[in-house]
Amino acid sequence: MKTLTVLFVLMLALIPSAQAQSQLNLMPMPASVQQGSGQLPINRDFSVGITGSHDSALEAGVQRFTAQLARQTGIMFQAKAGATPVLTVHADKALEPVQKVGDDESYQLTVSDSGAQLTAPTTLGALHGLQTLLQLVTITPKGFALPAVTIKDQPRFPWRGTLIDVSRHFIPIDVLKRNLDAMAAVKLNVLHWHLSDDQGFRVESKTFPKLAGMGSEGHYYTQSEIRDFISYAHDRGIRVVPEFDTPGHSRSWFVGYPELASGPGPFTVENENGPSSVTDPTREETYKFMDKFVEEMAKLFPDDYFHIGGDEVDGKFWDSNPKIQAFKQAHGMKSNQDLQAYYNQRLQKSVEKHHKNMIGWDEILHPDLPKTIMVQSWRGQQSLAAAAQQGYRGILSYGYYVDLMWPAARHYAIEPMSGAAATLTPEQKALILGGESAQWAEWVTPEIIDSHIWPRNAAIAERLWSPQDVTDVNSMYTRMHAVSLELEYLGLMHNAARDRMLQRMAGTADINALRVLADVVEPVKDYNRWDDAKGPIDFHAPLNHMIDAVYPESDTAREFSALVQHFAQSGYKDRTVEAQIRHWLTLWRNNDTKLHPLLEQSALLQEDIPVSQNLAMLATAGLQALDYIDMGQPEPDIWKAPQLVVIDQAKKPVAGLLLMVAAPVQQLVEASAQASHN
Amino acid sequence: MKTLTVLFVLMLALIPSAQAQSQLNLMPMPASVQQGSGQLPINRDFSVGITGSHDSALEAGVQRFTAQLARQTGIMFQAKAGATPVLTVHADKALEPVQKVGDDESYQLTVSDSGAQLTAPTTLGALHGLQTLLQLVTITPKGFALPAVTIKDQPRFPWRGTLIDVSRHFIPIDVLKRNLDAMAAVKLNVLHWHLSDDQGFRVESKTFPKLAGMGSEGHYYTQSEIRDFISYAHDRGIRVVPEFDTPGHSRSWFVGYPELASGPGPFTVENENGPSSVTDPTREETYKFMDKFVEEMAKLFPDDYFHIGGDEVDGKFWDSNPKIQAFKQAHGMKSNQDLQAYYNQRLQKSVEKHHKNMIGWDEILHPDLPKTIMVQSWRGQQSLAAAAQQGYRGILSYGYYVDLMWPAARHYAIEPMSGAAATLTPEQKALILGGESAQWAEWVTPEIIDSHIWPRNAAIAERLWSPQDVTDVNSMYTRMHAVSLELEYLGLMHNAARDRMLQRMAGTADINALRVLADVVEPVKDYNRWDDAKGPIDFHAPLNHMIDAVYPESDTAREFSALVQHFAQSGYKDRTVEAQIRHWLTLWRNNDTKLHPLLEQSALLQEDIPVSQNLAMLATAGLQALDYIDMGQPEPDIWKAPQLVVIDQAKKPVAGLLLMVAAPVQQLVEASAQASHN
Repeated sequence: MKTLTVLFVLMLALIPSAQAQSQLNLMPMPASVQQGSGQLPINRDFSVGITGSHDSALEAGVQRFTAQLARQTGIMFQAKAGATPVLTVHADKALEPVQKVGDDESYQLTVSDSGAQLTAPTTLGALHGLQTLLQLVTITPKGFALPAVTIKDQPRFPWRGTLIDVSRHFIPIDVLKRNLDAMAAVKLNVLHWHLSDDQGFRVESKTFPKLAGMGSEGHYYTQSEIRDFISYAHDRGIRVVPEFDTPGHSRSWFVGYPELASGPGPFTVENENGPSSVTDPTREETYKFMDKFVEEMAKLFPDDYFHIGGDEVDGKFWDSNPKIQAFKQAHGMKSNQDLQAYYNQRLQKSVEKHHKNMIGWDEILHPDLPKTIMVQSWRGQQSLAAAAQQGYRGILSYGYYVDLMWPAARHYAIEPMSGAAATLTPEQKALILGGESAQWAEWVTPEIIDSHIWPRNAAIAERLWSPQDVTDVNSMYTRMHAVSLELEYLGLMHNAARDRMLQRMAGTADINALRVLADVVEPVKDYNRWDDAKGPIDFHAPLNHMIDAVYPESDTAREFSALVQHFAQSGYKDRTVEAQIRHWLTLWRNNDTKLHPLLEQSALLQEDIPVSQNLAMLATAGLQALDYIDMGQPEPDIWKAPQLVVIDQAKKPVAGLLLMVAAPVQQLVEASAQASHN
Repeated sequence: MKTLTVLFVLMLALIPSAQAQSQLNLMPMPASVQQGSGQLPINRDFSVGITGSHDSALEAGVQRFTAQLARQTGIMFQAKAGATPVLTVHADKALEPVQKVGDDESYQLTVSDSGAQLTAPTTLGALHGLQTLLQLVTITPKGFALPAVTIKDQPRFPWRGTLIDVSRHFIPIDVLKRNLDAMAAVKLNVLHWHLSDDQGFRVESKTFPKLAGMGSEGHYYTQSEIRDFISYAHDRGIRVVPEFDTPGHSRSWFVGYPELASGPGPFTVENENGPSSVTDPTREETYKFMDKFVEEMAKLFPDDYFHIGGDEVDGKFWDSNPKIQAFKQAHGMKSNQDLQAYYNQRLQKSVEKHHKNMIGWDEILHPDLPKTIMVQSWRGQQSLAAAAQQGYRGILSYGYYVDLMWPAARHYAIEPMSGAAATLTPEQKALILGGESAQWAEWVTPEIIDSHIWPRNAAIAERLWSPQDVTDVNSMYTRMHAVSLELEYLGLMHNAARDRMLQRMAGTADINALRVLADVVEPVKDYNRWDDAKGPIDFHAPLNHMIDAVYPESDTAREFSALVQHFAQSGYKDRTVEAQIRHWLTLWRNNDTKLHPLLEQSALLQEDIPVSQNLAMLATAGLQALDYIDMGQPEPDIWKAPQLVVIDQAKKPVAGLLLMVAAPVQQLVEASAQASHN
């Protein structure tokens, strides 16, 4: 299939697009881009001069910039001492020791054929400008160069984050660091670190050593690792906001401290089948514990914000505890929501006492809580708007859950200020600070996580940075692919890991036929994998099947679908496009014969045998449909009925995989019924 | 092209081979392998028990083994506490603090369907056995498993090394470490670290801080990095032998210490055009300097051996210095060889005083030197045999220079005990301790080096470990490709770097047409690239062209050539093979049209335009030849003459690239002259 992609790209170039050809591959798209003429060569004389604040963070940023530029060009820079710098970087103000929400992130960039100037009010803005510069570098007939351009840029939202869950599966620091590099490349500025959940407590606590000591199976971050990590993020203009989920999602706390739980133990993180529970909000000791805990963590994590989770509290653990029931009655609480609000209010006092703003998920919203708290919404813009109307700040995560395996375009279309949010007053609108993508970790390992986040996360980053009217989906995909390549040079494994995993399953490096199949499937969407799992997830099961290896979104299927649309728009008359469609269908029809022996000999691939067979049958149906279209005859019902059965069958997930070319093939089969284009 | 490889592999399976189908993918091939029946499943209950010496090196080795096994299978091992280990590893004796030449490296391995036992007299042998185990793991219809087998193994030679030059281009420690991992995987046991040369002195000296301080452009290893690196190597059963090349190849010493030089300065490592020179062997101060230097380095590098280089001393620097001429005369020396022997004798006394054996290249061999020295031969077996006859130990590097871009098969055919060495007495033969591959660094960067060493280095490793009669080339290639995949899981970049470099040159991730071209070219061989460079090499020039990206050996060309041989052996009658040949030729003929626009728009690719055109013309000639063959008619001279011009043209290197399919196409064109097979 790979062989054919170039043909495809040539083909797609013929398809009309709203995008100008000269569009720069910038992502997120800056607020203002003015292209000039000429270009600035990048050769080994390239050098950078720093003026203004000249703080160590900017120097380190320039060093990283130069190292990445060397990776992107293969040039070993060696400017002559004393030469005029090709690029000057100026920031008025140094990076603050702790970044705040709303810090000035703007920058201006001018590139002409004689030099480049990057200026910013703060080092933070200058760091963003350096990322833009890296995206501007292109190979030209005369060598590497920056195009002449003037850019004025600042973000639309001050809070642009990515949540990474490290509890369900532990993710080592080095993997997180490369993800910070990627976040910086697309100007995301918050890592929301989901550090505890039922399956693991991942932070060393010196006050309560049994939290990680007994609740992590040995997989946790030491405080010194955390300090180093926060400093790494800070250098890249990224805030680190810790989340300790409570009172629900907290089984891992109870392994070492069962007295915190509302229900009886013993508790374990070793398997999903151990009893879960919810923190007991009726004991004074709970609040003493939490206050000491917040005190320790508030010192470890310098950010102004402290996330207490607060989502999905399972009331049955409170309902089944007579003491808790008595407490509710004694305090005149009508519901478990009231009890949680009571818990949150007391917890918020601790958080505030230790100089932090409390964040929590939708469920924490309650009029008894002060306006200093902030809500993170997994429920949607409606929920965010309701909070804003009550004077609460909020960020959106609804629609940005990258673990749900949506295509980038679907995330891209989620607009924080749409729906109910669009009707707010300007003051209320200002309370919506931005959003966060979320990478929940039920189905990832360190090997897989990059591909579940990237490159799709770049589309969300653009939604949160760029002007609201930047919405062209084709342009987004083009630029997202350019970012994807940039991320490879940064060391991200989102592309490379797939082939290694396919090779492992196949037991050989000769995986071309397997790639043909992998290129047209996607994992099932939303929570269907959970439903298919039947029963609790086994968090220790190997994630080494096809569903774990394939990309969340199939480029091939998207491109094939575009070809079929294009063919339809031509009234099924464009023979060149038809030839391309035939080429793909022929490849797919013939692939199963080659692939079958490989699938049979691997325990990991046997479950994919029907997927490969479905693809072959689908392709056969598509080719026959084209034959009917070519003959200009509607196909007979006696042919069409079984084809629709084939298509229906191919649309059903097998081994958690969706055949993404089923829909465009169906379109061909349906079309041949009425086509007559000779 | 990738799409077609599976077809090819299926085809090649039809070609008769001396190898049994059930051959295990072990490399180097063990001394004795006895396959059994059944298999041992590898699942999450897998665990390892250690008995015997149980030293920390073995424990660390088992941990690395388990980590790599997890990478190769994707399984998160989680054996129940107290369960019987699936694998037991036993070593009688712990790893010595400093490994010696000739330490026992043997091991025995038994795998049955109920468990596996690895036993060895030493931890060193057990480490090798763990590597064998990793190569035995395969995916089967029932899951990952080890086949039942009994292996008794030990090396043929005690000295199995790889030289890495870090002077011409600096190679960072992390890149060297992953190369140590790869060396351990194929049981190599010596890293020969070429630490100084004209272009850079790469070791911190506290005694003489200007060595690295002025002679390295800031790219050198600190002593603490070196200690850590040696410990990393030692953990993997690898000795680290330092080389400080003297009295030639030593310009970098003179930048900080010009008084050492025979000629006038000033000296510089900044460009190749600075004056070179040779150490002055007539000054007593030189020997005081060298003695102090050896004293310091002898402490830093614990190995018994100390390499002083001694190669390619350019006599003109001595000849043009009247003081040196006078010294020679005064001491009755007839030649510069005598003067170098005098230098070496005095240096050897320092080396011996600091408890090391001196090694040097062929040129140091001189009857005045004691039998404790050892010779490393770049000249060949003849030279080695001559040394052995005089009672000197030796190792072979002739034929193992991986920087010369030879195919693996050519290195593989170099036998240390052949030629003059074969005629030695048993006692003399015992003086030949093994060999070393050599990676000289004129044309590598950290990005490129892995692919210049791997996987071909595995073929040399096998030559030095396995019995002399293990020589089947087809088997070697099959097993080398399996090793190549294993190395990818270890983190080597020998395969992955190429596509990144191609993408960089192309400025896009859509490089399929570029891959088709890259797959059939190889860099020019031997020293032709130097000759083409015209003038001194510019060591700061970017190595980011096609010649830098492509693999030293084209698998595609080798496979295509095998197909043409097979077709010839069938009397040009095998239609199935012919169809495969046509498939490739058609791909190549059509590729230039697709590729041309990409080549034109990149300054780095424009030089490859004629290569792509030559490939298309070559393929056209090949297809026409097949047409003549099919018609059963000798082709007319009027057709043949221009085709031979095309072939001759395609055989000439362009942009340093050789089109490796020119020869098999020529064979088709020649064949069609007399073919008549209908």
